[in-house]
Amino acid sequence: MIYFDSLASYPMLPEVREDLQLTMQSHYANPSASHMLGEQGKELIEDTREVLAESLGAFASEIIFTSGATETNNLIIKGVILPLLLKGKKPHLITSAVEHKCILSISNYLELLGCEVTYLNPNSKGEIKPAQVKSALKENTSLVSLMHVNNELGTINPISEIGSICTEARIPLHTDAAQSYLKIQTDVDELNVDFMSISAHKIGGPKGVGAAYIRDLKDLDISPLVHGAGQEFGVRGGTLPTPLIAAFGTAIGAFRNYYTLERNIELKEKLLTGLKRLGVRYRVNGGAETLPSCISLTLASSNIEGLLRGSHQSLALSQGSACSAGSIEPSHVLTSLHFNREEASKTLRISFSHINTAEDIQALVNEIAKYTES
Amino acid sequence: MIYFDSLASYPMLPEVREDLQLTMQSHYANPSASHMLGEQGKELIEDTREVLAESLGAFASEIIFTSGATETNNLIIKGVILPLLLKGKKPHLITSAVEHKCILSISNYLELLGCEVTYLNPNSKGEIKPAQVKSALKENTSLVSLMHVNNELGTINPISEIGSICTEARIPLHTDAAQSYLKIQTDVDELNVDFMSISAHKIGGPKGVGAAYIRDLKDLDISPLVHGAGQEFGVRGGTLPTPLIAAFGTAIGAFRNYYTLERNIELKEKLLTGLKRLGVRYRVNGGAETLPSCISLTLASSNIEGLLRGSHQSLALSQGSACSAGSIEPSHVLTSLHFNREEASKTLRISFSHINTAEDIQALVNEIAKYTES
Repeated sequence: MIYFDSLASYPMLPEVREDLQLTMQSHYANPSASHMLGEQGKELIEDTREVLAESLGAFASEIIFTSGATETNNLIIKGVILPLLLKGKKPHLITSAVEHKCILSISNYLELLGCEVTYLNPNSKGEIKPAQVKSALKENTSLVSLMHVNNELGTINPISEIGSICTEARIPLHTDAAQSYLKIQTDVDELNVDFMSISAHKIGGPKGVGAAYIRDLKDLDISPLVHGAGQEFGVRGGTLPTPLIAAFGTAIGAFRNYYTLERNIELKEKLLTGLKRLGVRYRVNGGAETLPSCISLTLASSNIEGLLRGSHQSLALSQGSACSAGSIEPSHVLTSLHFNREEASKTLRISFSHINTAEDIQALVNEIAKYTES
Repeated sequence: MIYFDSLASYPMLPEVREDLQLTMQSHYANPSASHMLGEQGKELIEDTREVLAESLGAFASEIIFTSGATETNNLIIKGVILPLLLKGKKPHLITSAVEHKCILSISNYLELLGCEVTYLNPNSKGEIKPAQVKSALKENTSLVSLMHVNNELGTINPISEIGSICTEARIPLHTDAAQSYLKIQTDVDELNVDFMSISAHKIGGPKGVGAAYIRDLKDLDISPLVHGAGQEFGVRGGTLPTPLIAAFGTAIGAFRNYYTLERNIELKEKLLTGLKRLGVRYRVNGGAETLPSCISLTLASSNIEGLLRGSHQSLALSQGSACSAGSIEPSHVLTSLHFNREEASKTLRISFSHINTAEDIQALVNEIAKYTES
């Protein structure tokens, strides 16, 4: 099986696996316990909090561990909007039509409860422009939530410029950085963001753990999503999964050794050159500057349905995102970009990781060519 | 380090550790992906759903995976109450004063939003009587939430009888079974419950995964806590952590080989006989029928503070629950039982697991005796 689906989940790094073997064995205690085993667990967790904070240019006191980016998105958006709704106010949320499905699901829910939501439409690359945000701001805008990198196209949003506009208007900005964290610049001050969602399994860490960055958390009155027994500064309850959090920290430390711009560019070029050489017509979606490890291709003359069926046991590819998998509807991202059903069905997301070799790329090229009219 | 804190977190079972080593390696794909690796992950998850359902006498379609019992408690209680509050209704929730702190935290939050909450007071054993529930029921009662086993005392609530009353009154009953699942009878029909919260790490599985049992889920309109991309029947979003869920299934299968009534009774008796022999005065809290692996002792003549300090590196013991650890306030459970500050500070929760030997018990007895006035 050749794996080209790192945006759905990145292969676990060897260091993370080794680390989990050790911590699963030794850290069975509850890290809230006051005996020595509990304290040792707490120490590991606080170490990871420091490592994560440092990687974002943030303070450890601004990091909350969660079960993943989806929970974090819920924590932040509902944490800001629900208290306003419950006070009888009419908040306004700005987001986009091409966000991760969970953001749309949260927004739809809040809309039903009386929140006003503006869904900005992307340009043909899938990008949201700062000027769009500026003109969407209203008196009752309470939050702007825009993804850093689109999970189907790899398109990078100009979050830093959008952040400047939000800062000036004193509106907090949240970015879902699940796909960008450690892959491109994600310093919270460079990006001018107030909230950020992060996932461990997108950088070779374990599934089931993620984090929230919350600027000046200690001065905020954010409503918890998961009420608990005081863990995580009272913002997120539940026993902290020591081994998962420690492994998350290990992934943060090791990821840079596995993910390099050069290597991803090399794989991408090899793919496009290979397709050209075999006469496969393609269109690259998402514009010139996308996430290094991701490429969205529309292959007009190829039988993508046949390819996916034929290579089911040999290639891991994605049509749309993993989260929409199994759906017979064309992806909401591609629909927002005015792809018709035919174009959407002929669009593949190919995403790389360190386990991909030049031979893998050649195998993919050959397989695509096999399903392409000459 | 001798570990007597299995109620805070149960030592990981060897089978679970071995299982995680394999699945962490092979199941890096996103189980929502439609390629073969995704499908294999999904299969493992559905297998666990079946195993878990069977262990409860439930249907697989009534099981939702979450990050743990705290999240499940939030999902169920808020999922029932919040929609009513948001519709402008005034729901009534019945719970008790000795629930896990997260339930109290959720209840306090809902109270602030306008929900009426009745906190039933336990008897001297920490038990809630069916008659109390019956007389607390009102026209606007929307949910009863009572723990199956108290996490500080080990007291078992008569959930089955309480469930009969709720069924008759057509009020749904939720029970937090984090401490009871697989340790005593937890068949959902025997217990007459509509909702149940379960945690993997309390039965030797990994931290970071748990489940909700929701009776007739497909006919219910339960509001998600974590909105996502359609995972878990639309009730809980987020990438499912394949390895954690598979390991949860392994724990369910293996736990019975490690946890037996006989062995726990033996350890408990050895402890009490040992204390008697050395002339240590104690009172057993929680009544005669408590969770086999838990004993709450008040040691009036012992210097518990000194014991905990002195044995910090050799014994893992708990004063109150792990979740309240570090708190200087006496536990809310003991306070509800009218323990004064002095009594509460002299109360220890000792909880056993399969790694405890007769020698461990002797070491504990000796240590307690060392800090006891003769």
